Amino acid sequence: MFADFEKYIKTQTAVLTDDEISMIARAATVTNVRKKQLLLQAGDVCRYKIFILEGFLRTYGVDADGEEHVMQFSPALTWTTEGESYANCIPSNYNIEAIEDSRLMLWTKDTFTGLMSNIPSLKQYSENLVAQNLHTSRNRLYKAISATAEEKYEDFVKTYPGILLRVPLRMVASYLGVSLKTLSRIRQAQLQR
Amino acid sequence: MFADFEKYIKTQTAVLTDDEISMIARAATVTNVRKKQLLLQAGDVCRYKIFILEGFLRTYGVDADGEEHVMQFSPALTWTTEGESYANCIPSNYNIEAIEDSRLMLWTKDTFTGLMSNIPSLKQYSENLVAQNLHTSRNRLYKAISATAEEKYEDFVKTYPGILLRVPLRMVASYLGVSLKTLSRIRQAQLQR
Repeated sequence: MFADFEKYIKTQTAVLTDDEISMIARAATVTNVRKKQLLLQAGDVCRYKIFILEGFLRTYGVDADGEEHVMQFSPALTWTTEGESYANCIPSNYNIEAIEDSRLMLWTKDTFTGLMSNIPSLKQYSENLVAQNLHTSRNRLYKAISATAEEKYEDFVKTYPGILLRVPLRMVASYLGVSLKTLSRIRQAQLQR
Repeated sequence: MFADFEKYIKTQTAVLTDDEISMIARAATVTNVRKKQLLLQAGDVCRYKIFILEGFLRTYGVDADGEEHVMQFSPALTWTTEGESYANCIPSNYNIEAIEDSRLMLWTKDTFTGLMSNIPSLKQYSENLVAQNLHTSRNRLYKAISATAEEKYEDFVKTYPGILLRVPLRMVASYLGVSLKTLSRIRQAQLQR
């Protein structure tokens, strides 16, 4: 059942042994969620680290006008959580929602902390993930403040080649921080080229 | 000489003893840099963790059109580095520049790694800094994709009350990801209220 997880972790890190990866997998709770189901609601504390076995999640905020803004897309074979809420046990500013029927592995904080005490390499791997997330976040921030709408879209298509077929265009627009109108115009212009 | 550093670290963490903080301080090289001096040039590897004792730094990128984009302002009593370059020994995408005459503490990676081996709590503190940077970066990213130019400016003024007196307006505009013209219009409108 965890073959995909175990295979993925081995591509990510050499510091965990097969036994350790198996121990981490067996500590997870596996759950199926339906499209549009919320894993985390803004205002609640994020209690899980999540690994997506199948499906697709998104992390998004909702502004005072009810407008949704997508912070993150999480396809299969990636990790997600709301780190600030999870780490500090504070209400989350963001929602995590399944945008397709999904199959997930969940670890509570207690479980994951216990695993890290028993498996020092998991702590190392986990720190590396946080550092990698920081680099990704900073590079995306740099694009957000420096790139044109066209550049943002082209970069998105390159980074996530399959996503456009699976995600409504309005979510992509909100992820890029451009209006749906602007994004439609850019796509129209590209089709005409 | 390190009194400000030691005082600051004590406000940040309770896990380091006075002796440990003093050991960390004494391992640093103190250097004075002049306004406009580059601490790190894009394309070079970032070799230092930097603590700003006095002055003001900025981290910025330059796009293909020669336009500068400010990723980060670093006032006195904060840490900075280019984490991705520092961690992976790869060329940095960003420059770090003194925007005022500054007095800095520098630790090479060898020195800092050595300190972390000898002082396990420094590793913990350092991980907390990375996690905190991730939260800050994600929250700023959320603002970048969701807030109006007016909201970004108001948020900036609240977060960095003193900076506007010390930093050219064009740098603030580039930090916010809005044009100088838009920022000037927003400030004009606020003055007229």
